[in-house]
Amino acid sequence: MAERVDDLERMWADLAPVGRSACTGGYLRQPWTSAELELRAWFGEQAAARGLAVETDAVGNTVAWWEAGTGPGVLTGSHLDSVVEGGAYDGPLGVVSALAAVDRLRERGVEPARPLGVGVFVEEEGSRFGLACLGSRLATGSAAWADVEGLTDRDGIRLGDVVEGGSSSLLAGVGSFVELHVEQGRALVDLDAAVGVASGIWPHGRWRFDFTGTADHAGTTRMEDRADPMLTFSVTALAADKQARLAAPHARATFGRVEVAPNGTNAIPSRVTAWLDARCSSDDALDALVAAVTDHAVARAERDGTAVTVKAESVSGAVSFEPSVVAGVAGPRRWPVLPTQAGHDAGVLSAAGIPSAMVFVRNPTGVSHSPAEHAEVADCLAGVEALADVLEEALR
Amino acid sequence: MAERVDDLERMWADLAPVGRSACTGGYLRQPWTSAELELRAWFGEQAAARGLAVETDAVGNTVAWWEAGTGPGVLTGSHLDSVVEGGAYDGPLGVVSALAAVDRLRERGVEPARPLGVGVFVEEEGSRFGLACLGSRLATGSAAWADVEGLTDRDGIRLGDVVEGGSSSLLAGVGSFVELHVEQGRALVDLDAAVGVASGIWPHGRWRFDFTGTADHAGTTRMEDRADPMLTFSVTALAADKQARLAAPHARATFGRVEVAPNGTNAIPSRVTAWLDARCSSDDALDALVAAVTDHAVARAERDGTAVTVKAESVSGAVSFEPSVVAGVAGPRRWPVLPTQAGHDAGVLSAAGIPSAMVFVRNPTGVSHSPAEHAEVADCLAGVEALADVLEEALR
Repeated sequence: MAERVDDLERMWADLAPVGRSACTGGYLRQPWTSAELELRAWFGEQAAARGLAVETDAVGNTVAWWEAGTGPGVLTGSHLDSVVEGGAYDGPLGVVSALAAVDRLRERGVEPARPLGVGVFVEEEGSRFGLACLGSRLATGSAAWADVEGLTDRDGIRLGDVVEGGSSSLLAGVGSFVELHVEQGRALVDLDAAVGVASGIWPHGRWRFDFTGTADHAGTTRMEDRADPMLTFSVTALAADKQARLAAPHARATFGRVEVAPNGTNAIPSRVTAWLDARCSSDDALDALVAAVTDHAVARAERDGTAVTVKAESVSGAVSFEPSVVAGVAGPRRWPVLPTQAGHDAGVLSAAGIPSAMVFVRNPTGVSHSPAEHAEVADCLAGVEALADVLEEALR
Repeated sequence: MAERVDDLERMWADLAPVGRSACTGGYLRQPWTSAELELRAWFGEQAAARGLAVETDAVGNTVAWWEAGTGPGVLTGSHLDSVVEGGAYDGPLGVVSALAAVDRLRERGVEPARPLGVGVFVEEEGSRFGLACLGSRLATGSAAWADVEGLTDRDGIRLGDVVEGGSSSLLAGVGSFVELHVEQGRALVDLDAAVGVASGIWPHGRWRFDFTGTADHAGTTRMEDRADPMLTFSVTALAADKQARLAAPHARATFGRVEVAPNGTNAIPSRVTAWLDARCSSDDALDALVAAVTDHAVARAERDGTAVTVKAESVSGAVSFEPSVVAGVAGPRRWPVLPTQAGHDAGVLSAAGIPSAMVFVRNPTGVSHSPAEHAEVADCLAGVEALADVLEEALR
């Protein structure tokens, strides 16, 4: 037990400083930055130390294989990138736990009947190029390179200029996927359980709202002569919140990212661009929520003399993990089964026909996408044991 | 006449490309950037070509003197910096017209009884360090270097690290000031006049609102568990607009600049910082407007579980230009007299006890702080003649 804690703590100690802001304690691990490349190099070292054979595809998705047995392999793992100013666990917990589970299986003397892969997908958060699960979408073929290479980051840099890209056969030998992830809510706290299993993922997406008006002097322009897109945005942000609350507990809506031009104190903006993150428990409810928010935006734009355009940047339909897989993982152990509102690579692989499951580890505060994100060591160890159990069964 | 048009057009042709965005056509002439330094170098060349003696103070305020006669000098001029994505005329029109007025006075054979200075003040817009009329405040002593050297720009660069700074005696020999400026509204259009005179400047200022909440996952955090500062900001922006409309036509309120942290699509913000630009026709009305906006912010913060702090970054009281000076400039020529809602260096000099006046040139659209800002050549020429008339009288 003490040794297992040491192994885990050593991995976390390696990762802790990478991409961490000294000022806020938040993580800046956007894909293809030096911090994220350092994490990938660390993963390569960890794989090599365990004698795993590393395969990487053209965008940088990586699988480290424990080559054993025959037939389709079992994949586990997660991602190493973070949102801007994110926490330490969202992504890395699944990768660290996967490596630790390999160690546990070997301690148990397990001889896999099929290969076991530990995977790391790139740009899961979509924090740089705006498309969540970019890596797994490309690896499964649910996104084509030609359609994404023109995506640009906040500095206007094209994805195609950052990485060569192309098609991927990385998942050709994968028969199933298990992703362990820190819980991003407090359901497991309320259920007093260290570990849970996902039933599915809510449909969700991000929509770009462009509000355009007329730049003018903030002092000399009479109130009645203005076409101020900040007002149209403000009403839209409040409408999104209200519509999601009306549909509670089955909906979420957030405007967390805003860019203003010219963004000067004494200038009425010419443009406000804001991104709506919306999620619902059903595809129909999500469509209705986004339509209602759009209606409020359009109505207010008319009053403000502004214009609004709405563009879906990435939309993921509902995912139900294969019930037999969920039952197989959760049933015998009496682990609670819960839905999640967050997108994950497991959802992309599941939608692409690869039977997938997710194991959640309790998060005491429920906070995620923030430096306050946390998991206790005992719960992380319970997660490793749980993942090792699930994998051992799948490898028979 | 043709020659005067040529002279003016040559100066405008020199200035047109400096700091202009090829993409939007807007100007990026923030102080101490390469574009603004290029403009100052151009001004030095223009002064030298006219045999004017250039004096510069520690922050870069400049006066080019036509050394003549005795006693306190007459100063004219304006500024060369712009707001972010600003227009071509706000500032430069006053400097170009001042140089052209020197040419006109010489053509007329005027022999000044006292010195005439053409001045350029730095950071009039406050677009980089947040304090409008920074240069003229320092030059008049209404701001002290020790109080402003710690101001930082958007990149965190300290003013004191950009320029040496210190006290200024640049205005020691100045007895009066006349600033020509493009009108930032359509009063002169409605009055069918090419030129007008300012009666005074509305009290105005900028207030920084910091809305703080709790960063969390936009998908997994239940609506009722959120502390989302974007909502508090949105209500505040709408309240500012509404309060200003209620007080129309005597008030303006704008939130034109917003910064969000972490500003990620799938993260509820931890902080939204936004700047209120507010102006009213009286000091009391301005105090009441800002208090009303603050009250709305505080009330909504309580509902949202967020916090809000408000800090005045720069506040300028009402300026009434010396009525005898205004009457002296406007009266004999039947130029219309109008108030302005925009701050100007002339307001700072006036408040510091230097009798000042402002001449406005018609702006066909009324738009300013925008690439659409404009003045017709014929009106610019009328402005030069008007300024030359006023200066000729003042130099007797």
